[in-house]
Amino acid sequence: MFTFSCPVSFSITCSSSNGNIQNHGDYRVNINVNGSSCTGRPIKHHTLLNEVGVKEGSTSLSAIQFLENGHISEEKIRQRIPRQKLLVDPYRQGLITERGVGYRQTVVVRSYEVGPDKTATLESLLNLFQETALNHVWMSGLLSNGFGATHGMMRNNLIWVVSRMHVQVDHYPIWGEVIEIDTWVGASGKNGMRRDWVIRSQATGSTYARATSTWVMMNEQTRRLSKIPDEVRDEISPWFIQKQAINEAVPDKIVKLDDKAKHVNSDLKPKRSDLDMNQHVNNVKYVRWMLETIPDKFLERYQLSSIILEYRRECGSSEVVQSLCQPDEDESFANGVQQNLLTNKVLVGGNGRLGSLDINVLTYGYTHLLQTQNEEIVRGRTRWNRKICTGL
Amino acid sequence: MFTFSCPVSFSITCSSSNGNIQNHGDYRVNINVNGSSCTGRPIKHHTLLNEVGVKEGSTSLSAIQFLENGHISEEKIRQRIPRQKLLVDPYRQGLITERGVGYRQTVVVRSYEVGPDKTATLESLLNLFQETALNHVWMSGLLSNGFGATHGMMRNNLIWVVSRMHVQVDHYPIWGEVIEIDTWVGASGKNGMRRDWVIRSQATGSTYARATSTWVMMNEQTRRLSKIPDEVRDEISPWFIQKQAINEAVPDKIVKLDDKAKHVNSDLKPKRSDLDMNQHVNNVKYVRWMLETIPDKFLERYQLSSIILEYRRECGSSEVVQSLCQPDEDESFANGVQQNLLTNKVLVGGNGRLGSLDINVLTYGYTHLLQTQNEEIVRGRTRWNRKICTGL
Repeated sequence: MFTFSCPVSFSITCSSSNGNIQNHGDYRVNINVNGSSCTGRPIKHHTLLNEVGVKEGSTSLSAIQFLENGHISEEKIRQRIPRQKLLVDPYRQGLITERGVGYRQTVVVRSYEVGPDKTATLESLLNLFQETALNHVWMSGLLSNGFGATHGMMRNNLIWVVSRMHVQVDHYPIWGEVIEIDTWVGASGKNGMRRDWVIRSQATGSTYARATSTWVMMNEQTRRLSKIPDEVRDEISPWFIQKQAINEAVPDKIVKLDDKAKHVNSDLKPKRSDLDMNQHVNNVKYVRWMLETIPDKFLERYQLSSIILEYRRECGSSEVVQSLCQPDEDESFANGVQQNLLTNKVLVGGNGRLGSLDINVLTYGYTHLLQTQNEEIVRGRTRWNRKICTGL
Repeated sequence: MFTFSCPVSFSITCSSSNGNIQNHGDYRVNINVNGSSCTGRPIKHHTLLNEVGVKEGSTSLSAIQFLENGHISEEKIRQRIPRQKLLVDPYRQGLITERGVGYRQTVVVRSYEVGPDKTATLESLLNLFQETALNHVWMSGLLSNGFGATHGMMRNNLIWVVSRMHVQVDHYPIWGEVIEIDTWVGASGKNGMRRDWVIRSQATGSTYARATSTWVMMNEQTRRLSKIPDEVRDEISPWFIQKQAINEAVPDKIVKLDDKAKHVNSDLKPKRSDLDMNQHVNNVKYVRWMLETIPDKFLERYQLSSIILEYRRECGSSEVVQSLCQPDEDESFANGVQQNLLTNKVLVGGNGRLGSLDINVLTYGYTHLLQTQNEEIVRGRTRWNRKICTGL
């Protein structure tokens, strides 16, 4: 039996994904769209109702284009999801690598993706992992909907759910830095898929971070896990490669915390702004709930070096989530380490590197659990390195 | 007297912006950096301590590069902030426009920037406004620090603070859509600067959104507003143009709400993850607090068409924020409108556009206030359009 997660679901009435017409552009150019089997709001012809440019300072578009009874939805025209494999996408700055099956995207770390120390937050890295994964499927020509389902998966009412994620960060990219993100997929057991990522400095090629994740398929209606149907396997297996970003011969087991955990945040409720286009609370929110439970004083002094997440079950939008976390040892140990570090300042500044012994001393761990009324949602495990303040 | 805001400030000890050495890459290539007057952690020479590539699956870099007594900080090398005007940046997909003084950036709407209806959230648009503004300064060669201060501003201990922002959204871009964001600056009174933005569909040129904002300078130490010093005026005024994204002959005044406001969210506290690289809670957080105070039922049916923000004062990190909001009329009116819309369905579907009368009926307004213990932080005003569900 797989463990799995399909994050918090909301019921949204009258969402504009089904036929809102505020989002039309008044098209000034004709757009060719490949394929005629698009679903969605049907139109007969993609006519040009308004060729008037929009005046600066005007407060509304002067006409709303209207499309009736046909085969191409306006959403498809604006998205232009490819129906065939693309090798390069200049807008996404993406290209197909690894002899035709991997994907690489060049990204500039944006101003709102960094924290107060000007380095990218873990949440930003997780967002970029999601983005590049979806763009990989986008480039493959297999993409059927926003959350990476293929055409075959759509026909079988299947969606992807993540069961495990492991991220290692050695170096956080900084604001304005250009990075390259590589991603690829492989088989995981009989009915799973592995997706890996590596983040590198574009300028130097240095590896900054690695991640691996495991995905399984779930029937969207029954919410039961599914085998991979043959037609879906035929779609995705040509993209599988063996290479692994993180070697996990025997993945660590994460112990289950109970109410005796040292730090507890209760009464966590997903908000509307936490919802993504899959109508779910994004996994990044789970990570935020985990990390917010760690004391501020610790977070000021330590930087996350790795996180493992094991997803257990989906939870409803009305459920209230509790975040538990337990340090490996009392944090006063971590505070003591700070003192040691300060006395080592001359050594650190003198020989140009930290000895491996110091680095070992400077790591620290937490175990995490998100649950609703004693039912587990996600188990987590984080490792932390002491931030080095040498004053150089 | 200007109104102003310098958002919530935190005191961060031992942040890694001042000399952390975890973030080094082990450079495999030499990087040329223009200019020798860089500030920051000094180094004498940029040596190559380690030329070993990183093996796949390895869990840490094999060496930490160490830099001593010189003129180029590692941060500067990784960021590569230009010291001279750049006309094109292929990584940012940015170019200088408007006869050398405007900036345009091409952006793909990312998967995590959209809400459940697959359209970009207002928060994402605000983030992109910030990003393109900073990239505009980046391209100008004037950028001295992360939040858009010029070299002359740094010499005078001056920072930018926003006093007003007005955003109009006609069409929300959707996931995967390619958009172009234009931004430029102009004079605003004697001691202010205006910054405007326009978002267009890359495929069609249709305008999706417009925004204008007013900025003034504040002394970072005294927290008092400042005139623009001559040396700073000499830097920025060559970039000023008159064009305006939104014509605001007489900007609307926003009334001050009191405790009788219909909807109140109290006990709002900034979290560590809300901090940006200016050590402040990002303005986007303020907007989230405002919008979260509006009832869910309203947000399901209406889409924001404009927001005006008037920033009043900065507030400390330990302060607790209260978000008030008041509908123009009782929301039961808005619920009634839904009924009207449904009866108009045939009309809407029949002639290909909504009559202007219908559109007027379908708008709705809220007044907002964020305050701490009765001291105002931000006043706000939002307008909303009914989401159209024609089932076409």
